[in-house]
Parts: sequence; C-alpha cells; structure tokens
Amino acid sequence: MAGLLVKAGRAALIPALAALLGGCAAPRGTGDLGVVIERASGSVQVVDNTRAESLGRVEGLGDLSHASVVFSRDARYAYVFGRDGAISKVDLLRRRLERRVVQAGNSIGGAISSDGRVLAAQNYQPGGVRLFDAVTLAPLASVPAAPGADGKPSRVVGLADLPGRRFVYALFDADEIDVLDAADPAQPKLTRYRDAGKRPYDGLASMDGRYFLAGLYGEDGLSLLDTWRPEQGVRRILAGYGRGQQPLPVYKMPHLRGWALAGDYAFLPAIGRHEVLLADNRSWAQLAAIPVLGQPVFVMAEPSGRRVWVNFAFPDNDKVQVIDVPTRSVIATLKPGKAILHMEFTPRGDAVWLSSRDDDKLVVVDTASLKVLRELPARSPSGIFFSWRASRIGM
Amino acid sequence: MAGLLVKAGRAALIPALAALLGGCAAPRGTGDLGVVIERASGSVQVVDNTRAESLGRVEGLGDLSHASVVFSRDARYAYVFGRDGAISKVDLLRRRLERRVVQAGNSIGGAISSDGRVLAAQNYQPGGVRLFDAVTLAPLASVPAAPGADGKPSRVVGLADLPGRRFVYALFDADEIDVLDAADPAQPKLTRYRDAGKRPYDGLASMDGRYFLAGLYGEDGLSLLDTWRPEQGVRRILAGYGRGQQPLPVYKMPHLRGWALAGDYAFLPAIGRHEVLLADNRSWAQLAAIPVLGQPVFVMAEPSGRRVWVNFAFPDNDKVQVIDVPTRSVIATLKPGKAILHMEFTPRGDAVWLSSRDDDKLVVVDTASLKVLRELPARSPSGIFFSWRASRIGM
Repeated sequence: MAGLLVKAGRAALIPALAALLGGCAAPRGTGDLGVVIERASGSVQVVDNTRAESLGRVEGLGDLSHASVVFSRDARYAYVFGRDGAISKVDLLRRRLERRVVQAGNSIGGAISSDGRVLAAQNYQPGGVRLFDAVTLAPLASVPAAPGADGKPSRVVGLADLPGRRFVYALFDADEIDVLDAADPAQPKLTRYRDAGKRPYDGLASMDGRYFLAGLYGEDGLSLLDTWRPEQGVRRILAGYGRGQQPLPVYKMPHLRGWALAGDYAFLPAIGRHEVLLADNRSWAQLAAIPVLGQPVFVMAEPSGRRVWVNFAFPDNDKVQVIDVPTRSVIATLKPGKAILHMEFTPRGDAVWLSSRDDDKLVVVDTASLKVLRELPARSPSGIFFSWRASRIGM
Repeated sequence: MAGLLVKAGRAALIPALAALLGGCAAPRGTGDLGVVIERASGSVQVVDNTRAESLGRVEGLGDLSHASVVFSRDARYAYVFGRDGAISKVDLLRRRLERRVVQAGNSIGGAISSDGRVLAAQNYQPGGVRLFDAVTLAPLASVPAAPGADGKPSRVVGLADLPGRRFVYALFDADEIDVLDAADPAQPKLTRYRDAGKRPYDGLASMDGRYFLAGLYGEDGLSLLDTWRPEQGVRRILAGYGRGQQPLPVYKMPHLRGWALAGDYAFLPAIGRHEVLLADNRSWAQLAAIPVLGQPVFVMAEPSGRRVWVNFAFPDNDKVQVIDVPTRSVIATLKPGKAILHMEFTPRGDAVWLSSRDDDKLVVVDTASLKVLRELPARSPSGIFFSWRASRIGM
C-alpha cells in the first residue's frame, strides 16, 4: 500500500490519503457501547459504558419524543425508531448517521429478528407492521393489522422478536395478539389470536422468547401467550392487575418492557398505586405487593435478579428506589436528579445508568455501593440502550 | 493530517504512512466474533458468526489440549486459558497475540469479573486461584487453596464469575466450595464452605449467578450453593445423579458447563448411562430420563430453551442428537463429522457451530431446518466460544 502511494504523484496522493484516513478509526470493540436518546434535539449520544464516557453525538434523527433502539448483530449499528415513523441506522464506530428511512407517519418502536437480518417496525399511522432489510433498510413487506372499530388498521404495540426469525405484537384497536413468521421476509406468515384482551397497550417477551405478555387498558388482568403451547391460545393472568374498579389517577402508564422477569419472579409496576407487585413466574400468582414511594414506571431487575430498581411518575420522578428481592423490601431511596426517565444496566450489572431529563445529565451509579460514579452532560436524555441487547431475545 | 504529510519529504512519508496504516483496520463490530481452539497446533481461529467465515488464525498459544476462553467487556479481546498454565490475550480485531503470561504449571480454565477488570485462573499445579489485571495481565493476587490429603494446595475446578466482582469454584482435593470477593482484587476475601461433597470435579453457575452446582466424583448427587442464602450452606441434590453403586464404564466425564439450565428445567448428562436427565430447576426433582444414543458429554440448550443439543463420548462422538423440550424426546440425529467435541450457539440461536476434530472442520447448522449451512476447515478444532459470552454471567 505504501509502495502504491509512493508511485503516485503528490497531487494524487493527497485525496487518496484523505480517503484512507477518513475510513480509518482506531480499532475498538463494540460490546460496551451504548446510545442515549436526546429527545428534544433529535440526537443521540454514543457512550462507552466501561470508561463511563461519551464518545460523540449523532444528529438529525428527527422526532425522538418516544424512541426505542435495537442493535445490529455485530453490535456496530444502532437502529433508532423515532416517533415520526423514521428508522435511523447509526454507525457507533464512525459516529454518523448511516441511513434513514421514513416508513410511517407515526411509529412506536421496532425489533430485530433473531438472526439480525430483518427489522420490524410497529406503526400507529397507518397501523400495521413493516419489515426491512437490516443492512440496506430496503422494505421487504408490509403486514396489515386487523381493523379497529373505525375500520382502519389497528395501532400496533409491544412488538418483540421471538426465536426463529419471528415477531410478536398486540393490536390496541383490535384486541388481538399476532405472531409473524418472517422466515421468508418477503412473504411473512401471520398467526392471529383474537379476543386477546381489551385494548392491549404494551407487551413484552420473556428472555427465552417463550412467553408474550400484554398489559390491558380496557380491563384488569394481563394476557399471556405461551408460544410453546399455541393450541392453548391466549389466557388471562393476574386478574387483579390493572386500574381496578375505582381507578386512581394514573399519571403515566407503566412501561411493560421495564417489567422484570428475573429468576423465579416477575416484578410488575402497579398501575396507579404506590406498589411493585411480585408474582411467581410459573403460576403467575401474586406473591407480594411491595410499597414504594410513588407510581412506578420502570421496574427493572439487575442482571443478577438480586435487586430491582424502580423509577416513578411525576411528582416523584426525581427519585429511584432499590428493592432487595429475597427480603422483598426497599433498601435504598436515591435522588439522582430531576425527571429520571430511564435506567439501563451494564452487561453484568456492576453499574446502572440513569437519564435525568430536566437536569440534562446522565448519572452512573455503582450497584454495589449505590454511590454515584460519574455524571455526564446530555441534552434532555430519555432512553439509554446498551449494545449487550444485540445478543438477547425480546429486547 | 494530509497537510502534515505533504509538508514532510518523501523519505519521511513512507514510514509515517506505514505506521498509520498498520494501525488502521476497517472498522467492524465485535458482537458476532468468535474463537475456535485448534488444540493440536496451539492456535486459534477468529471467526465471524454472521457470515459464517474465518477471519484469520493466531498462533503461538502453547498447549491448548484443554483450553477455555472468556472475553473482554468490549468483546475485542479473547483470553485463552491453556493447559500449560498460560493466559493468552488475543486481539480479535488485529488478529494477533497481544500479551501472554505463564502463570502456573498446569491450569484448567478461567473467568472474568462482572465488571471486566479482573481475570481469575484456576490452577492444578500449584493448586489455587490467581487474579490478574484484565488489561495488562499483571498479577494482582494469589489465593491459596486448602490442602488435600497430600498437604499440597488443592486443584481448583468449576471456576465461574458471580455478580459483584466475585468468583466461585470448588476444590477437588479438599471437598470444598469457595466464594472469592475480589472487590479489592489485591486483597480478595474468601468465604469457605467445607464438606461440600466428595471430590467435586466440575461446576457451573446459573445464568443469574445465584446458584453454583458442583458435580461429584467421589459420591452420587450434586452439591448446590445458593449464594442468596449463604447461611444454608451447601446442600446435596439429585441424590441419584452419578455413577451409581455398580458403576458403568465412563468414557468421558461430562462437562458441567454444558448443563442446560433453561427456562424451568435443568438438563444433565447422565454419567455412564445413555440418558439425558431432566430436572425441575426449583425443586431439583428429577422429572424424566430421556434415552439418547450414547454417553452424553455436552448437553446444551438453544438460547430459546426450546431444544437441547447433545454430543457424545467415544464411540458415538460422530453423532449429535436434538431433544424437543416440550415433548422430552429426541427429534433428530445428525452425523455431522468425526469426533464432535463442542457446540456453540449464535447469540439468539439461529445457528449452532460444531467442531469436528478428526475431520478438521467446523460445521455450521441451521437450528430451524437442521441443515448444514456451511463447513469451514480447521485444525483439530475443539472449543468454540462466541463473544456474546462477554455480557453473560457465569460463562
């Protein structure tokens, strides 16, 4: 290569060299990278969760007021699903926007297939699911959703990947749970479970991709699909879970992705009540209601399952509580910053990152000592997503 | 940079350029990389599990006749623990041996702490555990093991990481299970559980790092430590597990790392019998004994937990069987090559890689169709390790 350049004249050398150097980043692994959504400015920060530092900012991602992120199989790219229906493919190594497609008018998130080849976007306007090639973002298929009462395709919620290049999601306007087999992504096959509960508003898949649970806005209880036993259909569990007959004011519907399915337990944010519910994840019987200081939003287990972290709806969103699982009690209350919107654990849980929207900062907390290790500036940060998600089912 | 080079004379340009380009690899993610042990030649192959291709070979790693691998937190480096007591740090991006230390005379594997900062090596000769800085491989501490009957420090087996920069392992010669807290890695703290079963020969930690199980060579049954309930000490489970009162010839003691703790179940290779045992992973009661065609060695669940793959001791080591978990029955028998020594799933289980030592090849199988996707040449391959392990507990 050096020989080739020496033969070239000086005039030819400069652009050749610039091109080479432009493509030359110091090699680094991508297993400890992450993306932080800066919701007000349409940007993301790329962070390193080993050194707890920011590596740079990528701009021009559009409306990120409700954004979610999945990662490419090699953990080099983050796919950011924006509220405005755009999918932005961000190169974490070069810190630049690689590609961007606007694929719907209003979208609520996405997933990536178990082999990393197919992206799925769940859309509100128009309703339905669309599939894309993960490398090129070229469209592969558009999967219509059953219509709601207004005759329009239903809004889609709770989209998650399942093993074997499948996806699962719920239809808010059509009371349905669908499993989409994208083995042939140009001609995906749909399996529909009707009467799957009134107004499912969010969902999550278990870590092994066996179960899908949907939270219901229109009735109490949860819907459960056991994908190993499809002949059983969708059944209702935790009949007492929901807003109840005399609903309390709900400041923010909890996020189901935050549910902790850890070890033998499921931890659920009670809706409207100042409680975290503990259920047995085999029988789905409720084992305990753990008092917390406000309405929980995210309830997330450390990777060890030993502790569960909880953030809260307004007016308690400046606090975070930590629950000890064996004793089922709150062992710490932290006040890390104003408007704590999200939490993300490092791969094996030695630290947790918190986004403080109204203090424009990220707070990195040591999970052993519960001490703040570092704070980093960020613009109205919301979601934090680390690249370990690339290798996990249902993330 | 281009300007700087233009100002320099041509003579100065060439070495400057060579230095620059030498450090310049095309950027790539490390989430889909892996390492294959080539046991006879002291080398490893670096592979890409998305494209199912070899990226190169790194040589000079010494005696790899019993080698294991862990990954750096950023998934850039593989640490190869060789039988000769060496730790080799391999740069997967530059495909070169970064550092190597010979830290014992005879070693059987290692682990990396939950924060990625500390390596632990489990040694046979001399017995005990040594800790190293994961970046520099500088020694941090030497932890002696209790002596066996001969007065020498016990051989150490089953080493695994636990959350909170801790490690757990068993002492073959001293009938003990130890938990090592390396919060201060220069002065680690040891908690000893004595009378932990006769001659523990291997062990494994559950995926959440709560449980440690040790297989016993000197008696039937298994030892279980619940690290959430240390006051309970070590208890015996699965009393019928072992060689039994009229032991059958055992061609190869099964590897406990291969045990599948998946969903509600644990799958165990029966010792000496042509069976895979299925146990409830809460009660540890045996639920079934599934007939297989030979003496199982590795019993590994797909990431979904839906199927379990089994390889076998001689003379059946040219076959692999696949068990369907819901029906608890063998659904396929494959004959992928001679001397299938190891199996490794891609991160979310769309494929499995098999090493065929005596056919000098790797076989990549689609887990959905069970068809061979590709074969790759390799020199007497044994262990296959993918970088998704970087973010998992107990790997």
